[in-house]
Amino acid sequence: MNQSNRQVALVRNPTGKFSSQDFELRDAPIPSPKEGEFLVRNLYLSLDPAMRIWAAPMDGYAPPVQPGEVMRGFTVSKVVESKHPDFVAGDIVNGMDGWQDYAVSNGVNYNSQGLVDTWNMRGIQDAELPLSTGISVLGTTGLTGYYGVLHLGKPEKGDTILVSGAAGAVGSIAGQVAKLHGCRVVGMAGSDEKCRMLIDEFGYDAAINYKTEDLMEAIGRTCPNGVNIYFDNVGGDILNTALANIAYGARVIICGAISQYTHLEQGAKGPGNYGNLLFQRASMYGFIVLDHYVDLRAKMEADLIDWLKAGKLHYREEVVDGLENAGEAVNRLYDGTNMGKLLVKIADA
Amino acid sequence: MNQSNRQVALVRNPTGKFSSQDFELRDAPIPSPKEGEFLVRNLYLSLDPAMRIWAAPMDGYAPPVQPGEVMRGFTVSKVVESKHPDFVAGDIVNGMDGWQDYAVSNGVNYNSQGLVDTWNMRGIQDAELPLSTGISVLGTTGLTGYYGVLHLGKPEKGDTILVSGAAGAVGSIAGQVAKLHGCRVVGMAGSDEKCRMLIDEFGYDAAINYKTEDLMEAIGRTCPNGVNIYFDNVGGDILNTALANIAYGARVIICGAISQYTHLEQGAKGPGNYGNLLFQRASMYGFIVLDHYVDLRAKMEADLIDWLKAGKLHYREEVVDGLENAGEAVNRLYDGTNMGKLLVKIADA
Repeated sequence: MNQSNRQVALVRNPTGKFSSQDFELRDAPIPSPKEGEFLVRNLYLSLDPAMRIWAAPMDGYAPPVQPGEVMRGFTVSKVVESKHPDFVAGDIVNGMDGWQDYAVSNGVNYNSQGLVDTWNMRGIQDAELPLSTGISVLGTTGLTGYYGVLHLGKPEKGDTILVSGAAGAVGSIAGQVAKLHGCRVVGMAGSDEKCRMLIDEFGYDAAINYKTEDLMEAIGRTCPNGVNIYFDNVGGDILNTALANIAYGARVIICGAISQYTHLEQGAKGPGNYGNLLFQRASMYGFIVLDHYVDLRAKMEADLIDWLKAGKLHYREEVVDGLENAGEAVNRLYDGTNMGKLLVKIADA
Repeated sequence: MNQSNRQVALVRNPTGKFSSQDFELRDAPIPSPKEGEFLVRNLYLSLDPAMRIWAAPMDGYAPPVQPGEVMRGFTVSKVVESKHPDFVAGDIVNGMDGWQDYAVSNGVNYNSQGLVDTWNMRGIQDAELPLSTGISVLGTTGLTGYYGVLHLGKPEKGDTILVSGAAGAVGSIAGQVAKLHGCRVVGMAGSDEKCRMLIDEFGYDAAINYKTEDLMEAIGRTCPNGVNIYFDNVGGDILNTALANIAYGARVIICGAISQYTHLEQGAKGPGNYGNLLFQRASMYGFIVLDHYVDLRAKMEADLIDWLKAGKLHYREEVVDGLENAGEAVNRLYDGTNMGKLLVKIADA
């Protein structure tokens, strides 16, 4: 065991994208668990678009990280010592243990019910899947794609689903889950390479490079009967153009708005075409999958594992080595230069 | 019977509000019904915000009225002659028979199922309610308030509902229906007189004059636990400010966007705070009550009649006399100078 606990703290609220000066790498003592707690060694750290919201002085779905605090993040970790009835040393778990080597937890991360939601990854280990999947396809991003498509999108055979940020950690799973449920799947991404990946690797029926194509024309051409389900990760003009193309009774799933996160202080751009919800008798849903972990995580994980093992579901991870590189790497999400799920390897299991 | 049929035709697409030059009053022959049709004498014409959309060269929920065509409108009418199995001479009906003295109909107005939906007002006559109620509290506007609140808002006892355009034909019914189902009801309107009407006549718990008050502060003060149901008739800044104040799990009902209708050509202003749907796990619904007439109109009308007869539901009508005055009167909707349901009396029964 290391003798100290490296931590990356947020030291100021960012302006625009993250800057190296927003973070500080520091050493702290390794904490000791009290009764009802356990100590973990973090192995992988998930980098997520929402981090820019957490780092801003605003309430999002979670309270803001205060300057001076360890930066928040989802993790895959190994339990080192436990005084908690649900965990024993050696367990591999998914929690929210932050940008650091070690953390003490009571098992309650951010969920709206305040229940223990640190997740024992036994199912993932039994399936002999890589531990990193606990924060990628089988973690919050994969589960977000699953929940949004199946529980809010309610896909019916023959529906057309349009996904923005389609090559990303959430979008790539959302599109494949919809495809497995009989949808025609169209994805939008920001490079020809990503578009090829959508077709060749994730089985999308069509792909749109939103940076080089006329989006209105391209959506009209690839979704000739309109968009039954729109799964939005990006917001801004892409959301607005998608709304212009929804079909009667469409379901619009607001999963994120990454195009807006680096200028939160100026307010987001609102979708002027929201009135099409009325004309098309459509609905728009905001959600946070964490709310549904207590009820649904086991079922969602089991389904995803089945599809992975059957070769019906594919995922892509981009692994950055070293906690000290997290602060620079996270900006790839806002640049759109990452491919698939972006995560940091902190230590070997 | 008159020997000619006065009609108000749309002769050009309006710019901004309606102008007298957008309409033409003309005489036409009284039409004769063929097999499966009936002839009506229009008695009352409903003036509705959506008319500005119908008159624009764009598809809304109905195809646009083409220049040269009789302007579309909901009506209360008396059947003069019938070759339709469902109607006999003397029946009082609610249909969509337009800005004219007489019309021939096959009973199919605008509904998405293409079924006969001209409504026989026998229930309203049996309840000895004024015929004008067939296009006010018991017509599309009243039913819109009922459906939106009960079927989409799904009010629970103790919920706070915020209504924009609260003194209007839809808003005044929406607020009262919510109140009857145990909600705290807060309304926004554009004058102190309307705000007094909300409290004194429609039983609202609080009223906000959006023209003179700081809206963000006023919503925060009157809805201290957040807005569980937001019923929007106006769009624009009011929608955006309401979205900033929604509670966890809120239902946002998009009924209309009257603030945007007189500059449709420039596109609507989108609500930048739509991201709060995600943070608050909220949903937003567009709807057109006409879709639900075949299934639900009888039940909705019966409930509203019960509440009217029991003195639990109040309505306000503003009646303009004479078809020739409709074109000028309709602008009161966009000025906000009408009180309650705006309608035109065309003829005595």
